[in-house]
Amino acid sequence: MAKDQFVNQIADIEEDFPRWYTDVVLKTGLVDYGPVKGTMVIRPYGYAIWENIQKELDARFKATGHKNAYFPLLIPYSFMTREAEHVEGFAPEVAVVTVGGGEKLAEPLVIRPTSETVIGEMYSKWLQSYRDPPLLSNQWANVVRWEKTTRPFLRTSEFLWQEGHTAHATEEEAMEETMKMLGVYKEFAENCLAIPVFTGRKTEKEKFAGAVATFGMEAMMHDGKSLQAGTSHYLGQNFSKAFNIQFLDKDGTHKYAYTTSWGVSTRLIGALIMAHGDARGLVLPPVVAPIQAIVIPIAAKKEGVLEAAHSLCARLCAAGIRAETDASDNSPGWKFNEWEMKGVPLRIELGPRDIEAGKAVLVRRDTHEKTEAALDTIAETVQALLAEIQANLLALARERKEKRVIRAETVQELLAGVEGGNFVKAGWCGCRECEDAIKEQTAASARVIAENEHADVCVCCGKKAKHVVLFARAY
Amino acid sequence: MAKDQFVNQIADIEEDFPRWYTDVVLKTGLVDYGPVKGTMVIRPYGYAIWENIQKELDARFKATGHKNAYFPLLIPYSFMTREAEHVEGFAPEVAVVTVGGGEKLAEPLVIRPTSETVIGEMYSKWLQSYRDPPLLSNQWANVVRWEKTTRPFLRTSEFLWQEGHTAHATEEEAMEETMKMLGVYKEFAENCLAIPVFTGRKTEKEKFAGAVATFGMEAMMHDGKSLQAGTSHYLGQNFSKAFNIQFLDKDGTHKYAYTTSWGVSTRLIGALIMAHGDARGLVLPPVVAPIQAIVIPIAAKKEGVLEAAHSLCARLCAAGIRAETDASDNSPGWKFNEWEMKGVPLRIELGPRDIEAGKAVLVRRDTHEKTEAALDTIAETVQALLAEIQANLLALARERKEKRVIRAETVQELLAGVEGGNFVKAGWCGCRECEDAIKEQTAASARVIAENEHADVCVCCGKKAKHVVLFARAY
Repeated sequence: MAKDQFVNQIADIEEDFPRWYTDVVLKTGLVDYGPVKGTMVIRPYGYAIWENIQKELDARFKATGHKNAYFPLLIPYSFMTREAEHVEGFAPEVAVVTVGGGEKLAEPLVIRPTSETVIGEMYSKWLQSYRDPPLLSNQWANVVRWEKTTRPFLRTSEFLWQEGHTAHATEEEAMEETMKMLGVYKEFAENCLAIPVFTGRKTEKEKFAGAVATFGMEAMMHDGKSLQAGTSHYLGQNFSKAFNIQFLDKDGTHKYAYTTSWGVSTRLIGALIMAHGDARGLVLPPVVAPIQAIVIPIAAKKEGVLEAAHSLCARLCAAGIRAETDASDNSPGWKFNEWEMKGVPLRIELGPRDIEAGKAVLVRRDTHEKTEAALDTIAETVQALLAEIQANLLALARERKEKRVIRAETVQELLAGVEGGNFVKAGWCGCRECEDAIKEQTAASARVIAENEHADVCVCCGKKAKHVVLFARAY
Repeated sequence: MAKDQFVNQIADIEEDFPRWYTDVVLKTGLVDYGPVKGTMVIRPYGYAIWENIQKELDARFKATGHKNAYFPLLIPYSFMTREAEHVEGFAPEVAVVTVGGGEKLAEPLVIRPTSETVIGEMYSKWLQSYRDPPLLSNQWANVVRWEKTTRPFLRTSEFLWQEGHTAHATEEEAMEETMKMLGVYKEFAENCLAIPVFTGRKTEKEKFAGAVATFGMEAMMHDGKSLQAGTSHYLGQNFSKAFNIQFLDKDGTHKYAYTTSWGVSTRLIGALIMAHGDARGLVLPPVVAPIQAIVIPIAAKKEGVLEAAHSLCARLCAAGIRAETDASDNSPGWKFNEWEMKGVPLRIELGPRDIEAGKAVLVRRDTHEKTEAALDTIAETVQALLAEIQANLLALARERKEKRVIRAETVQELLAGVEGGNFVKAGWCGCRECEDAIKEQTAASARVIAENEHADVCVCCGKKAKHVVLFARAY
């Protein structure tokens, strides 16, 4: 009955996936709606996932030579207008500050929707001689983009992210950086989020406003739709010309730098939820789960049980496992279901008979498999099981990713493919008209251009194909 | 000569301390001015200090049961007006967003100057029954307060901080929390920043707008002025009444919660600089220094020297020491001075003769003391020296703090005291007029009320003293 109560709290995952998503994010305490339309409050359980994501990514950024810095939230409006494509893309969605300290401002300020402009301005100051590049910065920050339709984590007026910004002496180095960071994201997505991704170049239509080329990683969600989980932009000299980022080269001439930017955001939490979740709620990969193992005392009022649960939990924590004990007054059944809904990878049940027998019962969230473990080596057993769960989630996601990619020769096939929850590869002539027509007819967009794949003709116009493109409906 | 060049880059610390400060923060690459007046860019060397501060504080917050969360940047203007004192204090300094997504907003939004209001709104939703309190949240965030006179780290239109917000069932618990977090700050300031502080209650004039009582910690800077380094506010039911934060108690009645808030900011970096800096520049305490030990190869072009320096550095890093090697083309003399200016606690010189003799030369930043250390046990030696440096910086700061507190019986003595670079304790009748008059005549303000100290009469009006107050000129 307790289980039914919990499952009834969330919509059926197969029947109404959008409702399931909203139910899950709210009822597991990941997030709440903020008072201003389109904003979200990231609650402790959600924020802890973000902290784990930050920790993993931050170490990778530092290992690749990047340093964190912090650039201002407020940007002069005029900065936005210096790069033609950039202003076209971002001006419609900025929040504008017009009053400060009780007075109307001489120049309005925008809240950063992204920081290429303000960082460009600083780089033009810091980059002087050929000794200075590369400049390799990253910042963890909030950004604001006014959105009409919003959903927690997936699309909100304010979100948290990291944005890397680098400046290089040559095109080659900037392109190498762009691809290196795409690779960092891909490795992180697979090994930490257990989400295998498609990576590749974006079409002109889908690229970042102001980039020469955008490379993205796309993740397949439970419903077969795609979620853009991270992007890495090669900006060429677009921003260095707009912000005069030049250095005096060895040959005595001033040269414009080549810049890049790359980012991932709290969207990744949405990706996690929609990639791994099931009918019972969240399923969190151990690497980023706030709580990796929940200890549940059985017959907790019996002498010594609660103490044994706390002591077991303390031992797990000492071994570096994020463990907690649920010592609340709720029934064990209630607790089982609540922590299942919250996606904790491993449940540990400990009752009087277990204690007597020197063991505990372990239940996996991913497979629901039940095993017993000796208490004296339980930390090692838990570590090993967590690693297995992590690997299994990746394997399951990989299986789906591979099974659900089909090929289409006609727009009809493409439509049928995406309606069946697939990603669809198809030939494309390279023109915007066909890309728009496909979107119009199938609601699928070009996610990335597939590398080293061949098609004879464009799925839309039948002319010679220039690329094979991965199409999907997307969040 | 190299040394002179470096020292000449910064103003004389005794003659022009404000200029010295500006020179040091800019020339050591801690910070730069942002494009919008009053904003700052925190550069990697400055941000790394903030990361170390965050790491230390975050662990303390979590150990005391707090969880991180994230609340929206933008707050409906009307929220500000719900608590009378709060709006009076903050409305004059907010930045106001009036346009979003190309349209004029129906209700203007303020960029958070602090988050009591928006968090109050959420707490009113989350706090339902007597089982819910305490709510113990913290957020790491940026805030904006429009300031007329700004200085990097000390007072800027945007700054980074943490703000803790808690809600409790009883007055006692809320007051206990307020004092507990003041204690956490004090312990952190002393053990991590090596800055001993005065703590105590603020006067009505100096308290947080909307608090029942504010408790602050005040740190003595090199010039004898005080810097408010952190505050902890007991908010009583002011915000719970304004935002309807109620819970259904066991007795079946609805009760308003008692709330607290507490914060420290990037101002702490300013405190570090002004508490420990000397004529040569920064002096950073090892616990928060971005680089704890800098390895400088001597005759770096001789075979094996650079390799030995890198390998020594790697061994230090492996032992958990934040070490770097300066392998640049600059001369050793240049490097010595540059890293001194940047305040690195320990310099390690390694030349061909040192390598042959199996040793290195260690030079302390705080005392300039030079010692030799055997290479095979150098990690332990460095760890021990860093601990000594940390302790010595605290001892020096403590000595100054104790030596430079005097007692005044008249406003003249108080004026002479603060002009001599002292904190001054004096009797105070408790009335606002005397507090204002003292400020007017001495430029000193009431920093905190001294506990358990007695004075017969008010230093200003001569009437019966209610408190002994610590007065100082302040940043």
